[in-house]
Amino acid sequence: MQLHKMTGVMGLVLLPVLLTCTLEPGRAAMANRAALHLMPVPARITTGEGKLVIDAGFSVALTGYQEPRLVSALERFVRRLEQRTGIPMPAPVPGDPGRATIVVQCEGADEAVQSVRADESYVLEIKPQQAKLTAPTPLGIMHGLETLLQLVDTDSESFAFAVIQIQDQPRFPWRGLMLDPCRHWQPIDVIKRNIDGMAAVKLNVLHWHLSEDQGFRVESKLFPKLHGMGSDGKYFSQDQVREVVAYARERGIRVIPEFDMPGHTAAWFVGYPELASAPGPYMIERHWGIFDPCMDPSKESLYPFLDAVIGEMAQLFPDEYFHIGGDEVSGKHWKDSPTIQAFMAKNNQKDIGEFHAYFNKRLSAILTRHNKKMIGWDEILHPDLPKNIVVQSWRGQASLAEGARKGFTGILSNGWYLDHMLTAASHYQVDPLDKQAASLSDEEKARIWGGEACMWSEFVVPENIDSRVWPRMAAIAERLWSPQEVKDVDDMYRRLEFVSRDLEALGLTHRSSYPVMLQRLAGNHAVEPVRILSDVLEPVKFYTRGGTREYASFTPLNRLVDATRPESDAARRFGRAVDRALGSKSELQALAPQLRRQLDVWRDNSARLKPILDDSFLLKEAAPLSEALSALAATGLQALDYIESGKAPDESWLAHQKALLEQPKKPPTECLIMILPAINKLVQATAVKH
Amino acid sequence: MQLHKMTGVMGLVLLPVLLTCTLEPGRAAMANRAALHLMPVPARITTGEGKLVIDAGFSVALTGYQEPRLVSALERFVRRLEQRTGIPMPAPVPGDPGRATIVVQCEGADEAVQSVRADESYVLEIKPQQAKLTAPTPLGIMHGLETLLQLVDTDSESFAFAVIQIQDQPRFPWRGLMLDPCRHWQPIDVIKRNIDGMAAVKLNVLHWHLSEDQGFRVESKLFPKLHGMGSDGKYFSQDQVREVVAYARERGIRVIPEFDMPGHTAAWFVGYPELASAPGPYMIERHWGIFDPCMDPSKESLYPFLDAVIGEMAQLFPDEYFHIGGDEVSGKHWKDSPTIQAFMAKNNQKDIGEFHAYFNKRLSAILTRHNKKMIGWDEILHPDLPKNIVVQSWRGQASLAEGARKGFTGILSNGWYLDHMLTAASHYQVDPLDKQAASLSDEEKARIWGGEACMWSEFVVPENIDSRVWPRMAAIAERLWSPQEVKDVDDMYRRLEFVSRDLEALGLTHRSSYPVMLQRLAGNHAVEPVRILSDVLEPVKFYTRGGTREYASFTPLNRLVDATRPESDAARRFGRAVDRALGSKSELQALAPQLRRQLDVWRDNSARLKPILDDSFLLKEAAPLSEALSALAATGLQALDYIESGKAPDESWLAHQKALLEQPKKPPTECLIMILPAINKLVQATAVKH
Repeated sequence: MQLHKMTGVMGLVLLPVLLTCTLEPGRAAMANRAALHLMPVPARITTGEGKLVIDAGFSVALTGYQEPRLVSALERFVRRLEQRTGIPMPAPVPGDPGRATIVVQCEGADEAVQSVRADESYVLEIKPQQAKLTAPTPLGIMHGLETLLQLVDTDSESFAFAVIQIQDQPRFPWRGLMLDPCRHWQPIDVIKRNIDGMAAVKLNVLHWHLSEDQGFRVESKLFPKLHGMGSDGKYFSQDQVREVVAYARERGIRVIPEFDMPGHTAAWFVGYPELASAPGPYMIERHWGIFDPCMDPSKESLYPFLDAVIGEMAQLFPDEYFHIGGDEVSGKHWKDSPTIQAFMAKNNQKDIGEFHAYFNKRLSAILTRHNKKMIGWDEILHPDLPKNIVVQSWRGQASLAEGARKGFTGILSNGWYLDHMLTAASHYQVDPLDKQAASLSDEEKARIWGGEACMWSEFVVPENIDSRVWPRMAAIAERLWSPQEVKDVDDMYRRLEFVSRDLEALGLTHRSSYPVMLQRLAGNHAVEPVRILSDVLEPVKFYTRGGTREYASFTPLNRLVDATRPESDAARRFGRAVDRALGSKSELQALAPQLRRQLDVWRDNSARLKPILDDSFLLKEAAPLSEALSALAATGLQALDYIESGKAPDESWLAHQKALLEQPKKPPTECLIMILPAINKLVQATAVKH
Repeated sequence: MQLHKMTGVMGLVLLPVLLTCTLEPGRAAMANRAALHLMPVPARITTGEGKLVIDAGFSVALTGYQEPRLVSALERFVRRLEQRTGIPMPAPVPGDPGRATIVVQCEGADEAVQSVRADESYVLEIKPQQAKLTAPTPLGIMHGLETLLQLVDTDSESFAFAVIQIQDQPRFPWRGLMLDPCRHWQPIDVIKRNIDGMAAVKLNVLHWHLSEDQGFRVESKLFPKLHGMGSDGKYFSQDQVREVVAYARERGIRVIPEFDMPGHTAAWFVGYPELASAPGPYMIERHWGIFDPCMDPSKESLYPFLDAVIGEMAQLFPDEYFHIGGDEVSGKHWKDSPTIQAFMAKNNQKDIGEFHAYFNKRLSAILTRHNKKMIGWDEILHPDLPKNIVVQSWRGQASLAEGARKGFTGILSNGWYLDHMLTAASHYQVDPLDKQAASLSDEEKARIWGGEACMWSEFVVPENIDSRVWPRMAAIAERLWSPQEVKDVDDMYRRLEFVSRDLEALGLTHRSSYPVMLQRLAGNHAVEPVRILSDVLEPVKFYTRGGTREYASFTPLNRLVDATRPESDAARRFGRAVDRALGSKSELQALAPQLRRQLDVWRDNSARLKPILDDSFLLKEAAPLSEALSALAATGLQALDYIESGKAPDESWLAHQKALLEQPKKPPTECLIMILPAINKLVQATAVKH
């Protein structure tokens, strides 16, 4: 560490200043420019003068500790740098560190199985002649290489890395994404490309939700009816599981399997009804929700079965943790079963909760026998369980804090359900150590290890899952990695745009799938008017969509709501522009022409879209949305007229507009028109003197 | 065949009428609408009334002859239909033909090794209750499935196939694409995705140019120094070759390898200098052009070597033809070699041509021993060679006709060099039986088997090769498949747009690579102004680019010229609009606002682009182009003013504009501004009274 040699030192406190300064061209500002694209923001940045040129002479030398994982990480790095620059680059070879563009120095090996105890830190020092990346382990090197790729910049002379020094480590050791290939099948390429995306934003846990009412998605050689009768043939073979685990380890990511028990288990019972609390036969569940089928913990024969299954799966997944789910047990079949009721009475189990805790205790013993520690959802929290379990909280910081006070470790998922279709900003503002957790002691806080975003898959297929995970996931990744003080929302959005582009280049499809889905809706018509509408829409939030119509496993997800993005960039930008325009007279003058141009396009779109809607059975349901957008835009234009002229509208106009503004809030639609709040502000502003 | 049952019968003569009629919504017109997207146009279409609905109940039944290739073709078809509709579809299972949506009936097997003699015909009959696809062979079934996918349409009720009957077979039996992974390495995924594209437009020959001065690209187990020293490690393993051959056969495509001899062989000599006409040592050639290194046909030791290499390669490539290149022998090393001169004198070989023919005759014997027939470029044409050779003509129809008269078989490539960066229209207008070949007798014409487009790779990398092949290749594919009478250029462009979209969905990257390359140029700036400029540019034509600057193997192909498309759709559309506007006063009135809007965008673009150019070392060379575009647009706007006002411009304005219009024609640029001719027409039109 040679921070004193640099021209400017900037610690945590200065960071938000750097990150909100405007982008200036020119050489001196290159380090600032470069830092402007980093996401997650590193723990400590020191900017300098000058740059390290990237040209055809580029090379990397690896010194210190060596292992194949480092070599392949460097090879991937060089390929991505080649893709980024278009400069053909030879494979990295063990070269002379004195002459290399980048010297990568690793000090030692990672644990054989990556854990929360891993040292993920790295130091990156870029000087005009050479860059040096040092880290105690390959994991730190991998994180540093991702930072390097985000630092690539172009100026009037060359591609270059800015002269900069970065000292970085994560705030939380558990930074995860949960993928659910059960509700809708997500094949191995979906999993792998999402692992690539996770590595790019320094996440380190893939939580793989592998069994559900709707599918048992891993091959079991011991009990082949699990996947054979419980998956419609859509499951990961054991070879594929090993491939994913190895792929993730190559990228510094742990893989934790979830086998949800004792509820969410209908798919198990198709082949093995004897495990269930109620008599069969059972079918794979084809609908979404919380269902009654549940294992029967009173049956002693259940435990050897689970011991064998868990033993088999424990062999496939080297991670020390094993997720047993444990959520959403309806309890109906337990209450309805005389044998279970008798068992509970005999064992003095006063309620379903105690019966469930009994099951978890038995499970815990099985996991221990297979050298695994338990992780489960809030419901598993019970004093009888050992303190080494991890509670994953879908309930929130209060639940997490309660666990921490009792000595349990926890991670947060509440607020990070990607399927709720919330904004990146809303996810970004969630903090595991916020709210009730803020008042914990330091020792208790240390039990909160981080968090995981959850991508439940009721409404995603491989075609659109990436657009529901990315780029919003990157904002959550920053919350989990970067210093707590980093929380400027505007700056997050600015950087998210760059990260989103890089993620698409890495192979994710969150951008490229959009025009394809819109074209399907447009049929053989021009897609542009469909895009203009779709760009300002978002799917309804939380669990609203499930209530709008009948959905089941095989319902095509090929409608407008499936193409729209969880967050409308167009509407957000328009909203920001309206806010600025209403802030001062000069801003209003400056921005009005641009607002009018945008509103013109929206107002005119309904007429352009109509013949397409009329000719597309998939799109015709969007007619009310399309008309509402045009009407809102017309209102916005009229409101601008009033505001700019300083003339107050009469009451009847205001009343009419207010009625209009209420209209699109009422379904039957599954999409929301996201410019509505901004139009509303314009209407409100007509009453104010400008 | 039940043509009489259909409501309308339409043979070849009516086809152009159908294909230029406008797209009408509504149910009755569905068959016409559907036929409007077919490319290549089938030999015979009969339209009907109604449609066959595609919904979640969709199924396919295979009757008659069965083989695994048919099963996988059906599986791919269902996956693409699923992608197209977004409707989840189960794998095709042997089902009840009575209840299937589509019955596929194949009558028998293809040849074990596909040849020009293959029957590629099929009959497709779509009725409201069921479709039937019948063909004598799997090859015909595959072509029919591609037609079916092009018939998928959306209307106000459903996805559907129109009721239609198609009886189809190709005009020529040899319809190829040559790919060159030698100049710039093109890995296996590039080859495979282009095979997918070929199958989609019913091409049937992949000509794989595998050795060159710049690389020997196949693993040789017998002579490992061929690829080991001649490829920089970038070669196809024998397993990969088998994979490509199998992949192509699964899709009805022959694979013909080319090992170019005796010239274009520098890469062979790196490991085996003893094969050459001049003493070594030799290096892999790093530049583009025609070079002197050449095999020494006077050395008897050459022939056992070639016998072994060809024998080894003949095992990998089952096709009956083997391409020996034979082009562009400079002859210098032959003339300079006393031993070769002595050999020629001793054998009464009067010139280099006879010496070359001697070599080809020896090669021909080797090929025959390995059960291969020879194909080579024009230069191999010599009376001494057997009549079963095929001559691939880069010289043109005259050369082809001369061969045909002498009894030789030929295929055309002249006019179809994709690297010349010509328009789809220009390629579309080329016909193997046109020009000198038009006057051949029927028997002689039958010797012209078709043609191949050639994608020489001096200026393409995997990132942009697809954009140089597609969608223009589809226009050539239509020329080779469809009746000679199908030649409406406007209609070709209209259908090309649909095909291009489908090809991208199939995995080609001709569209998706464009924004990525533009973003690289824009660095971290907004890409839009770069796109506006790039959209109206085309790379310089023919071999002009090689003369503009020093190019070599490792020169990055990451500049504006590499991102621009071979054909500017924006400029073509603008040009057509200008033509229409200048055609009548009413058209002028109708189109002027739209022309002005477009010209405004171009005129204003230079100011928007300037800060980006100033900050991008890759883009700054485009400043003159950017300024010229703005100036041309300003000229166009002024010209429109004159034309609309009916006021003639003064001489000095005209003189000034004429000078301006000359400017962009002068390099140092590698790109052409394609709106120049249309602006010129507007300026010319100012002199005419409107």
